[in-house]
Amino acid sequence: MSGERGSYARGIARRAQIVQAATELFARVGYRNATVLEIAENAGTSRTGLLHHFPTKEALLEAILEKRDTDDQARLGPMEGPLSGLRNLVALARYNATVPHLVNLFTLLAAEAVDPAHPAHDYVVRRYAGAPLLMRRALTAARDAGLLAPGVDVERQARALVALMDGLQVQWLLDPAAVDMAAVLEGEIQQVLLVGLYDTTEGDR
Amino acid sequence: MSGERGSYARGIARRAQIVQAATELFARVGYRNATVLEIAENAGTSRTGLLHHFPTKEALLEAILEKRDTDDQARLGPMEGPLSGLRNLVALARYNATVPHLVNLFTLLAAEAVDPAHPAHDYVVRRYAGAPLLMRRALTAARDAGLLAPGVDVERQARALVALMDGLQVQWLLDPAAVDMAAVLEGEIQQVLLVGLYDTTEGDR
Repeated sequence: MSGERGSYARGIARRAQIVQAATELFARVGYRNATVLEIAENAGTSRTGLLHHFPTKEALLEAILEKRDTDDQARLGPMEGPLSGLRNLVALARYNATVPHLVNLFTLLAAEAVDPAHPAHDYVVRRYAGAPLLMRRALTAARDAGLLAPGVDVERQARALVALMDGLQVQWLLDPAAVDMAAVLEGEIQQVLLVGLYDTTEGDR
Repeated sequence: MSGERGSYARGIARRAQIVQAATELFARVGYRNATVLEIAENAGTSRTGLLHHFPTKEALLEAILEKRDTDDQARLGPMEGPLSGLRNLVALARYNATVPHLVNLFTLLAAEAVDPAHPAHDYVVRRYAGAPLLMRRALTAARDAGLLAPGVDVERQARALVALMDGLQVQWLLDPAAVDMAAVLEGEIQQVLLVGLYDTTEGDR
């Protein structure tokens, strides 16, 4: 029994190692250029060992994408008060600055996956249809509480916030010392608010 | 003499065909995945024929990058009046919506070239060091004419405009019908101005 459990735990650890190695290699050379053999070597296993856990490169990519979404959802946390959604976005940008490999992977993937033949195409299309929704919800909460500057179009502003976060990632990857993603995002959000983003508001708990 | 001229003209036309084919292929599969043979075939020439004009894939990439920069500089035109710089940015976004292959190529290239080993790395680093400068100049002209909203940090706003344009390109490539890059950009610029972006101002000629 303990042998089986040990083997199960080792399997989990090995999967995590492979996902980590794939994330780093995809981030560096792109999904298309990465080979299963190179990922296996970087993860300290064999090609056969890798394929035992992930039968295809696509399966590996899906595992990475799922993990990121689950992690991000957990990190964003619930909406608490009318400005928490916008504060969460700044917190996410701050967190992203601690995971350059992941940011690099997603930047590269979004660009590669414009091609309908790319295995992540549907995922990326879905993600960009959904991302503005998150921003829209955050902006709508602020507007409903009367905290949004007059004349701000929520739909347009939501799209702009997604674009801003994506574009800042490219600048930051190229020159991490010069670009503070969270600070720029906070400044831009502040500009459309009638109160300080971190002021205590009635809706805060 | 006329034979030589004809041959010269044919050479120019062939180079342009090759650059066009390379732009399209790089945009679709990425610079790294594109082969010289495939580019040659798409341009209706042989591998040897291509290498006669461009001895390496890097030389081809450089030709594309140079052409884009020259074209964009010509398109942006001179600064005429305090708002012309910002108007030019909106015009550039509108123009970009007519050249999806180029936009796709640059989106993919910026993401790929984060890797210092990528042949376009230095170009992309230089470009992102220079792009905020263009935005900074446009914003500074508006501020000096007293047309910028109080509290707008020119440095931060310049970075944000570059990021916004880049990020919008990804969204637009994924769903061209849903995203109007120029309209979103214009809306965001309008938000930091005290007058209408297209109002006639004293500085206009």
